[in-house]
Formats: sequence, structure tokens, C-alpha cells
Amino acid sequence: MTRPLIFLDPFPRTEAMVWDDATRAAVEEMGEVTAHFGSRAPDALVERILPEVSVIVGQTALPKERLDRAPNLRAVLNVKANWEPDLDYAEAHARGIWVLSAAPAMAPAVAEFALGQALSLLRGIHTADTRFRSGDMGIGIGGNAAARPLFGAEIGLLGYGNLGRALLPLLSPFGGRLRIHDPWLSDGYLRSQGAEPTDLGTLLAQSDVLFLLAGVTTENAGGLTRARLETIRPDAAVILASRAEIVEFDAFLSLAAEGRFRAAVDVFPEEPVPPDHPWRQIPNVLFSHHLAGGMEASYALIREMMLDDIAQVLKGLPPLRMQRAEPRLAGLMRSR
Amino acid sequence: MTRPLIFLDPFPRTEAMVWDDATRAAVEEMGEVTAHFGSRAPDALVERILPEVSVIVGQTALPKERLDRAPNLRAVLNVKANWEPDLDYAEAHARGIWVLSAAPAMAPAVAEFALGQALSLLRGIHTADTRFRSGDMGIGIGGNAAARPLFGAEIGLLGYGNLGRALLPLLSPFGGRLRIHDPWLSDGYLRSQGAEPTDLGTLLAQSDVLFLLAGVTTENAGGLTRARLETIRPDAAVILASRAEIVEFDAFLSLAAEGRFRAAVDVFPEEPVPPDHPWRQIPNVLFSHHLAGGMEASYALIREMMLDDIAQVLKGLPPLRMQRAEPRLAGLMRSR
Amino acid sequence: MTRPLIFLDPFPRTEAMVWDDATRAAVEEMGEVTAHFGSRAPDALVERILPEVSVIVGQTALPKERLDRAPNLRAVLNVKANWEPDLDYAEAHARGIWVLSAAPAMAPAVAEFALGQALSLLRGIHTADTRFRSGDMGIGIGGNAAARPLFGAEIGLLGYGNLGRALLPLLSPFGGRLRIHDPWLSDGYLRSQGAEPTDLGTLLAQSDVLFLLAGVTTENAGGLTRARLETIRPDAAVILASRAEIVEFDAFLSLAAEGRFRAAVDVFPEEPVPPDHPWRQIPNVLFSHHLAGGMEASYALIREMMLDDIAQVLKGLPPLRMQRAEPRLAGLMRSR
Amino acid sequence: MTRPLIFLDPFPRTEAMVWDDATRAAVEEMGEVTAHFGSRAPDALVERILPEVSVIVGQTALPKERLDRAPNLRAVLNVKANWEPDLDYAEAHARGIWVLSAAPAMAPAVAEFALGQALSLLRGIHTADTRFRSGDMGIGIGGNAAARPLFGAEIGLLGYGNLGRALLPLLSPFGGRLRIHDPWLSDGYLRSQGAEPTDLGTLLAQSDVLFLLAGVTTENAGGLTRARLETIRPDAAVILASRAEIVEFDAFLSLAAEGRFRAAVDVFPEEPVPPDHPWRQIPNVLFSHHLAGGMEASYALIREMMLDDIAQVLKGLPPLRMQRAEPRLAGLMRSR
Repeated sequence: MTRPLIFLDPFPRTEAMVWDDATRAAVEEMGEVTAHFGSRAPDALVERILPEVSVIVGQTALPKERLDRAPNLRAVLNVKANWEPDLDYAEAHARGIWVLSAAPAMAPAVAEFALGQALSLLRGIHTADTRFRSGDMGIGIGGNAAARPLFGAEIGLLGYGNLGRALLPLLSPFGGRLRIHDPWLSDGYLRSQGAEPTDLGTLLAQSDVLFLLAGVTTENAGGLTRARLETIRPDAAVILASRAEIVEFDAFLSLAAEGRFRAAVDVFPEEPVPPDHPWRQIPNVLFSHHLAGGMEASYALIREMMLDDIAQVLKGLPPLRMQRAEPRLAGLMRSR
Repeated sequence: MTRPLIFLDPFPRTEAMVWDDATRAAVEEMGEVTAHFGSRAPDALVERILPEVSVIVGQTALPKERLDRAPNLRAVLNVKANWEPDLDYAEAHARGIWVLSAAPAMAPAVAEFALGQALSLLRGIHTADTRFRSGDMGIGIGGNAAARPLFGAEIGLLGYGNLGRALLPLLSPFGGRLRIHDPWLSDGYLRSQGAEPTDLGTLLAQSDVLFLLAGVTTENAGGLTRARLETIRPDAAVILASRAEIVEFDAFLSLAAEGRFRAAVDVFPEEPVPPDHPWRQIPNVLFSHHLAGGMEASYALIREMMLDDIAQVLKGLPPLRMQRAEPRLAGLMRSR
Repeated sequence: MTRPLIFLDPFPRTEAMVWDDATRAAVEEMGEVTAHFGSRAPDALVERILPEVSVIVGQTALPKERLDRAPNLRAVLNVKANWEPDLDYAEAHARGIWVLSAAPAMAPAVAEFALGQALSLLRGIHTADTRFRSGDMGIGIGGNAAARPLFGAEIGLLGYGNLGRALLPLLSPFGGRLRIHDPWLSDGYLRSQGAEPTDLGTLLAQSDVLFLLAGVTTENAGGLTRARLETIRPDAAVILASRAEIVEFDAFLSLAAEGRFRAAVDVFPEEPVPPDHPWRQIPNVLFSHHLAGGMEASYALIREMMLDDIAQVLKGLPPLRMQRAEPRLAGLMRSR
Repeated sequence: MTRPLIFLDPFPRTEAMVWDDATRAAVEEMGEVTAHFGSRAPDALVERILPEVSVIVGQTALPKERLDRAPNLRAVLNVKANWEPDLDYAEAHARGIWVLSAAPAMAPAVAEFALGQALSLLRGIHTADTRFRSGDMGIGIGGNAAARPLFGAEIGLLGYGNLGRALLPLLSPFGGRLRIHDPWLSDGYLRSQGAEPTDLGTLLAQSDVLFLLAGVTTENAGGLTRARLETIRPDAAVILASRAEIVEFDAFLSLAAEGRFRAAVDVFPEEPVPPDHPWRQIPNVLFSHHLAGGMEASYALIREMMLDDIAQVLKGLPPLRMQRAEPRLAGLMRSR
């Protein structure tokens, strides 16, 4: 029996991110490996592997004409957290090819980061240090005029996908009311997850802490307009964690700057943000430069999930750890 | 039947902290109230209430000779989080007088603050903002060289009292190994709480995240000497949350400044810290000025617990929410 | 815009089970309804609805030639808990038609029943009543020679599908070691669920309480042979909850009758069991007549899940509550 | 330094229950041991040990005159689950002597038994076996007319002491509304435990599953009169788990016999119940003969808790595992 061919084309993921010695050894035990790092694999290489390949790890472009030439292909493991636009999802689905994304591997890191941002906004952890170093004498309750608790706070999640599912168990011990708005999910499903489904208006107006976790779709880009953002509960803590495009970004920053709400921002419409960009000087915002998900622990989890799911797929079993593309939804998601 | 006399002497707690309208109304329904705010109640006033008083709310000095003159006294509710030195604990215990502290009301606020500090130290949340504003171009994994996850981290708690019990459920969802060292608690008890009991040496050497939560006693003051602190796991995140006196403070700051470990410090040997004190300029420490516990939400919880326990005591039932003095231990705790 | 056609053909489910007034009203709001109860829908009726139908609720036979004539079909909601053999899963999948089963709606009922069986076996709850009525004088520890605790017991699950996922949270508070054997699931996945993956031999030999929850496949039918069953830990409590075919049934009963282990049996190779069948007199077994899942509460949950998922599908969104057929696995599952 | 004297007088607990080899070895390492088994220790022996004894394990009568002669006594560990009437609780308290009961060691066993009883009552697990053996042909929903789910049921606890605290985490995963009535506990405390405080009338009328867990006091004996019992929600499952004296016992059985509610009974006003007592033939009740707590696993836990707390007390630290007598309440509890 011939061994299955596994093709790696993970750019822009680097060799270091997805291909440490242990991973390489484990994959090589499962099949023959062809790999290309440092750039998108050249067309000639892709053409050469198509007739044999069983599993593709990476973001290789896979329009229908390529899928037609890959009769053994069982799975495509996108090691980024998105859905690439140049893959024919419907055709892959029709052929029974699993298309998978590594988004779940990023979720724990983003969830703990978002919780830390929320606690910093509510309790002033990041500003306390600056104040202390500047000689501020506010101490105890005298320094806590703006402090509010996470315990018992009303919490809102806009979007309940990988990030929301990772964040929910971290928030549960704080005991507050938990609402979710996600137009792709039924009320019954959200209740079965222990949350209260709600409409967008209520979510914005009633949350003390508001996590913006939705992906961008062709439908919701810019959906949180200035007018919507103005309905956010005054002084709420708002964490923009998923994609900048879901808010009217400059309006969001300007409302935060005015003190309308407290904001933490990890994602931007343009990344990297140029060093002298005016965003960098907006006051009253807790900034980070897309640091929530991309850490070594997340890549270790990508490697673990990838190994698990290659093994499942080669046994003819469904993958379990990475996220499966929903054929109708993948096309709606905007990528970059 | 005469109504019981309830005496309030909460200084340094202010009237606003413990005596809002709802609290006053609820207490006045339970008995006659005599109150003194703004300073320690004068001796003459104390002498006058002793023969009748059933419940004292506050830190009134209560040596044996005063207890001798208070035949109806059932409970003393210290609305601070400590054990006052000028109360005769053994005598109160012998007379069946409950002596209670409001420490449990502070614990949720301190626990969530400490979790936020830990996440900031591990994930660089507070430094990310400074770096972003300064034009730093590190983004994603390129900006996360020092980032480490809380998910899966080995966690150590030094001391497992009110703070530890409030913090444990917040840490559980992160799934890491959890060790506790507390010389006052048996191994069997710690295991029954879902934690792994351990000795101090292992705790310091094996924790990725180390929460210092012990109270100060006549036995452990300064117990974490420089030599001990040097055995902390390199690059661990260390949160000093309870009392500065449990560490050799200057050694602690200097090891943190050298990058030996990451540190968050909320408590100081001298408070308030003078505005120009050199501590305020130590690098590599996340400072706050005793902000972890003293917020409005904590005082609201004090009021709630106080009301609950006054009602219990006046019904002849044991108090449930505030912490009971352990007669042999209260004397060991250092107060201020 | 024309309203979608929803076709009901739920036999052997009755009208009462799936079509109460509230459900009917809700479905009729979502589309035009054609329904047939009391028998499998006649071919002529099926042929008539195929050209228009969007959603089929039931077990209508759907070979490729019928799917070819159903261009608008988006989903088939099997309201039984199995995968029907006369549906072309691969073709349905290729066409992007969701094929769903109501198995998850049965899982809570089965899980709580299985927990109750385990507690009865371990603690002798069902035998206590008989003994008491017969005048037995064993009381307290004098009557508990055979009693063993669930708290701290080593627990094994054979199979981790809908039943296992519903049962796990009920077992967690008992704090014992939890092992799972499921050849379709990777070790990494099982660990991510908080369980310890294990091989079949260890599972049988080391479990104090063993839940048999696997479905029957063409591969595992009769897999628990007498030889295998003899390796079960002596005096273990064994709950046969999913399908009788996964064990060598008469050997299983005979080992239980000999006291080799304690057994609870809810499923049989032949159902209903004839009234005078010798199985009914086997001693030392806690019998029930396929009562674990089929209760009114389960049908209420089927109706709720069905409504939720019809709504999702008609909005072009993925279903969330019912179970999706895995095209490669559905064919392996034996049905009846 | 002389080693402390530890005195064992555990009757009616037997030597086997409290004094296995490991326990004996561990206690002998902590001090000198004098032990008497098989009967209450003779007065002469008690008199002899009083002047030196540090710890008494058992139910030795300890009126004030004996306490006066026991200057070193630090703790009395009652290894039963009650409060003995012939101990002077107030005097022991005044002297700073811990008086402890082993009730918490019984709680896990009772809680899991009560959960099993509830599941049997709701789902008919114990009757299913009898029906099956008798040739009954009811299968699936056809045999489940009386079955009701625990998932989502409204649950009521009468009394929230050791039993309630052990039971609550077992019930939480079922997700139903949870109410508690306990006149000794404040509403705020019950809410802090995640339950809803309620009055007795609401508890009886609104619970689908009702756990009777209260101890008997001089105040509540017979408190659940026939009139009260008639207000129980029709067809509720009622588990009498703590003490028979809290209900009007014959009325309770007779209402259950009439089918007014479903009942499980483990405790009786007279124990052991004579073999031919008419109680033993009451229909529609799930009986057991005081089997809920007294099993080997409970005695193992008593030994573990006892060892832990002897060690704590001999170090001058508060006990942690056994229950402390509340001096005012212990006197209210009826014992036998």
C-alpha cells in the first residue's frame, strides 16, 4: 500500500510556526511529505503534487480546476484563522474534502487577553501604574473613583464563535448576567450554552462589559455605526477583539476619547499601523498591536490540532479539533 | 420586650461606606441605634452603651474590663478586613460573643484585580499600550516574544484564606496545575478544595504564576527573604496581593527590576507611599497604590454582609457571611 | 416570493410526538406544510412534493434518483435517533443538503437514566426496597456490605458521542478518574474534553463504573465478546445503555448472573422482549425495557431542536441543535 | 517535651470503623494513645485520662465537672454525625475546646444516595425491573407514561447543612431552578451559594423534586404536618433523607401510598424497623433501611477527617474537616 502524500504550503506561516521537529517526525510517520516554506508554493510544485496529494496543510489556491486534478485529496488544513477566498468551498464540500481552519487554536489566547483587557478597563490596572509612577496619592477607595467590578457585571458578547466559546467559561465564575447577540445562531442554541440571546439594541444598551467578537461578513462590515455606538451604555467597557471592520472605526475611537465608554482595541482597519499614525495618540483607549492571538502557545496548539486532524482524516474519520468550513458561510466571510 | 441596642463606631470607615440610607433603615428596623462617625467613639459614649449593647459595628477597643460591663453583647462586627489588637479575643470567645471581620467582602475585588494583574504580566497588556503609543512596530507574534499564556500555566498560591478562596474559581477554567502552600491548612483540606498541597520550596520553584496571598503573622513576617525569592522560577509572574511584610520588600523589587521575575505590587510596607519615594521609579514592576480591594462594590458587600449577620446574631443564630475570629489565630495576625 | 415547502413524514414517530399545536403553528409560519402521519408516506405523495420541497422532516427514503428530483431540498431532519439506511448520504452531502438526526434530543434523558442506574447498582437502591419489604434487618453499615461509592470511583466510558457528552457533566462532580475509549476520536480531542483517553483493555480492567455508550457499527458489532467481558474489573457496575449488539449479549447476562460484575440493561438484541423470554428472569441484573430515552421530555426537545434547525436552514444558516450526518460514518452505522 | 495524650472512646463506632492500621499508626505518631472499644469507656478510665488528655475521639460524656478536670483538653471529636446531649457545649466553648462532629464525612454518601433515589422516583428505575420481570410489554415511550426528567426540574431543598452542601453540586448540571428553605440561614447567604431562598409554602408547592434534609430541632419536630404535606406539588418526588421526625411520619406514608406524591424514605421514627412492622408494606414508597450514609467509604472519610483535625488541633490550629459545634445551636439539635 502506498503511503499518502501530505503537502505543506503554510506561507505566511513560517516553518518555525508549524513545523518543529516533533511535528515533522509525527507527520512523516503518517505519510510522504512535500513542503514549501517562505513563499506561496510555485504553481509547478502544486501541479506536481495534485494527482497524489491526500492532505494539504496551508493556503494553496484551490479553484475547481485544481480540485478536479486532485482525486485523492481528503482535507485542506488552513493554518491561518480565516477562510481564504481562492478556494472553491462548494466544490470541495461536494467532493467530501474537509476544509479546516486553525481559528480554534487562536481562541484561548484571544479569550484570556480579552479578559485581561476587560479587567484593566474596569479596574484601571494599566493606568494605576502610570499614576503611581507620576506621584499620584490616590490610595484605596480614594484612588478608585472610576473602578467597577467584573463580579456581577452585565456582560454582552457580540458574536459567539470560537472566541466566544473560549471566553464564556472564563466569565462564568464572575456570576453576572450574560447576554449574546449573534444573528447566525438561534435563541434555543444560545440558551443551551447557558447564555441569554438578545437583540443588538439591548446588548449595546445593557452591557457593563461588551466584547466585540464577531467576524466580518459581507453583511455586517461597518455595522456598528456611530449612531449604534452612541447607544452603548455610558461608561461601559468595550473590547474590540475580532476585526476592526465591524465598527465604524474612527467614530469608535472618537467616542472612547470623549469618555463615552472605555475601550480596548487590538485590531485595526490597516495593519501594521504606521508608526506615526494618529490612532496611536488617541487618549482613553487601551491599545495593543494585534497581540491577542499570535503567541507561541497558539502556534503550539495549531501544531497539536493539525497533527490530530491529519491523523483522523487519514483514518477516514472526521476531523475534531480544527474548524470546518460551512460551505454557505465561508463565502460570506471577508478575508485578508 | 425591649429592642436590642446596636452601636456603630466604624472609624476609619466613613459614614458613607457603611451607612447608606438602605442600610440605616434596615438596621433601625432591627433595633435601637447609637452611632458615632468621623473618629473613634469617645470613651464616655462607649461606657454609656456598654450595659445595654447587643451588637457593636466597628473597631471599638474591647479589653476584658469593657467586656465585663457588656452583659448583652452578642457580636462585634469589625468592618475592616483585619483583626484589631485591642480586643480580648479569648475573653470574647469565652463569653460566646462573635467577633467578625469584613475581610470576605474585600476578597472578590482583590481576586479579580489579582487575575487582571497576572494576565497583564503574562500577556504584556499594560506595556502594549505604552509600546503602541511610542510607535513600536512589533505586531502579532513579532510583538509577543515575552508573552506567555495563563491557559495551562502552573499556578501557585501562597496562603489560602479569603483571597485564595475567591481566586480559585477564577483560575480553574484555565486548566493548569494548581498548587497551594499554607502552613495553617492540612493537606487533606487543600485536596478537598481541588488543589495540590505543596511545600514552600516547590511552590516557588515550580510556579509560572505565583500569587502571594498570605496574611502577616508574628511568625512569617519577612519570611520570603532574598534567598528564598531567588529560588522563584525564572520569569514567573509574581503578584504581591496581601501584605508587603511577607516579603523582604526591597529585595523583591530589586529582583523584579533585574528581570529575575515579573512582578505586580499593590501593597507597601509604608502606605501611602510618599510621592517622591524611590519605589515609584523601580522598572519592570506593575504598580498600584493599594487599589485591589477598596472600591465601592466592596463596601456595598460589607454592608450586605453586615446586615445579614446582624440579623442572624439577633435571632440567636450563627453569623454566615463575615469571617469569625479564630481565638488562637487572631492574636497571631499583625494589624495596623 | 413563494413560501418554502416543508414536508412531514415522521413515521414511526406519531403525530403527537412531533406535531403539537405550538410546533405546527411555528412551522406553518415558516412555510407551506404537507404532512403524512401513521405510516410511511406513499410514493405518490413523495413524488408530488419532491420538485418543490425545501425541508423534509422524517425518514422518507431518499435514494439518489429522488434527490435528483428535489432541486430545492436543503435539509432532511430525521426525527429518530439513528441514520436510516435508505438515504444516499454521499449524494445529499455533495448537494449541500443537511442530513440531521434527533439523537442529541434523547441524550439528556439517557444520561440521567444511566446515572440513576449506576447509583442503583453501586448503592443497592433498587434492592434495598425489596429487602426492606421482605423484613430484612440489615441497617446502616450492617446492610451496606455491598455498597460502594460513586464519589471517587474510577469511571469508564466506552464511546463518546451524544450520550457521553450529556453524561460527562453529570459525573464530573463525583471527582473520580474519568477514562474514555472511542476509536473514532483522537487522544487530543478526548483530553480537550477533560477526560483521559485509554485503550479498551485498560478501560475494562480499571473501571469501577463502566458505561457502554457506543453505537453499533459494521466494525464493532459483538466486539465485547465473552473473553473481553471476562476482563472487566470484578464487581464493577456496568451499564449497557446504547445498543445491545455491542456485547455478546447472552455472555454478558450470564457473567452478570454469576456475580462477575453488576449490570444494568436497557437495550436488547430483540425488542420488544417477548413476555416469557428467559432474559426476563436472569438474576443480578437491573432491567428496564428500553426506557432510558423515550419519554415525553425527549420528544419536547426533539420538537424544540427541529423548530430551531428548520428556521436556521430556511435562513441559509447551518443547523445547530440536531446532529449532522458525517457522510463517511453514517454508512458504517447499523440501523433498525 | 511530653507527648500529648489522645483518648479513643468511639462506641457505638467499632474499632474497625475508626481504627484501622494506618489510622492507628498515624495517631500514634502524634501522641500517646489510650483506647477503649466495644462499650462506652468506664468512668474509672475516663477519670484517669482527664488530667492529661489533649484530644478525645468519641462520645465520652463531658459535663462541666469533667471538663473542669481536663485542663489540657483541646478538642473532642465526635465520630458520629450528631451532637451528643451529655456534653456541656457552652463550657467547652468557653474553654476554647473544639467540639467536632463527623457529620460532613457522611454527607457525600447521603447526597449520592439521595440523587439516586430522586432519579429512581422520577424515571421509575426501581419499578422498571419489577415490571420487566413480570412480563410487562410497555417499552420506550409506551412504558414511560409516569417518567419525568430531572433535567430542568424545579428542585427544592428543605435544610441546607452538610447534606445540602454535598448535594448541590450534584444537582447543578441538571440546570433546573433551585430553591432552598432554611430558617437558620439568611437569604443573602443562600444566594451566595447559587440558590434561591424561599419560604416553606413556596418550597412545598413549587418543587418537582423535594429533598428533606433538615435536622430535627426542638422547634421543628413534626413540623411537616399532614396539612403541610398536602400542599406538596402533586406527583412531586419527595426524598426523606435526614430525620424522620421532621415529618408527621404516618401521614407522610399515607399520602405517598395514595399517590399524592412519590416518596423515598431512608429514615424512620423507630430504628431498626421491626421485621413485621406495617410500614414495610406501604405501597408506592421507595424504602431503604437507613442505608444512605453508613458505608465503608464514609468511615474511611471519617478516619481521614479525624486524622487531619487531630493534627491541626495539636499544632494549635483550627480544625478544618469535621463540623464545629455552634454552641447555641448544638443544644437545639435532638440527638439519639
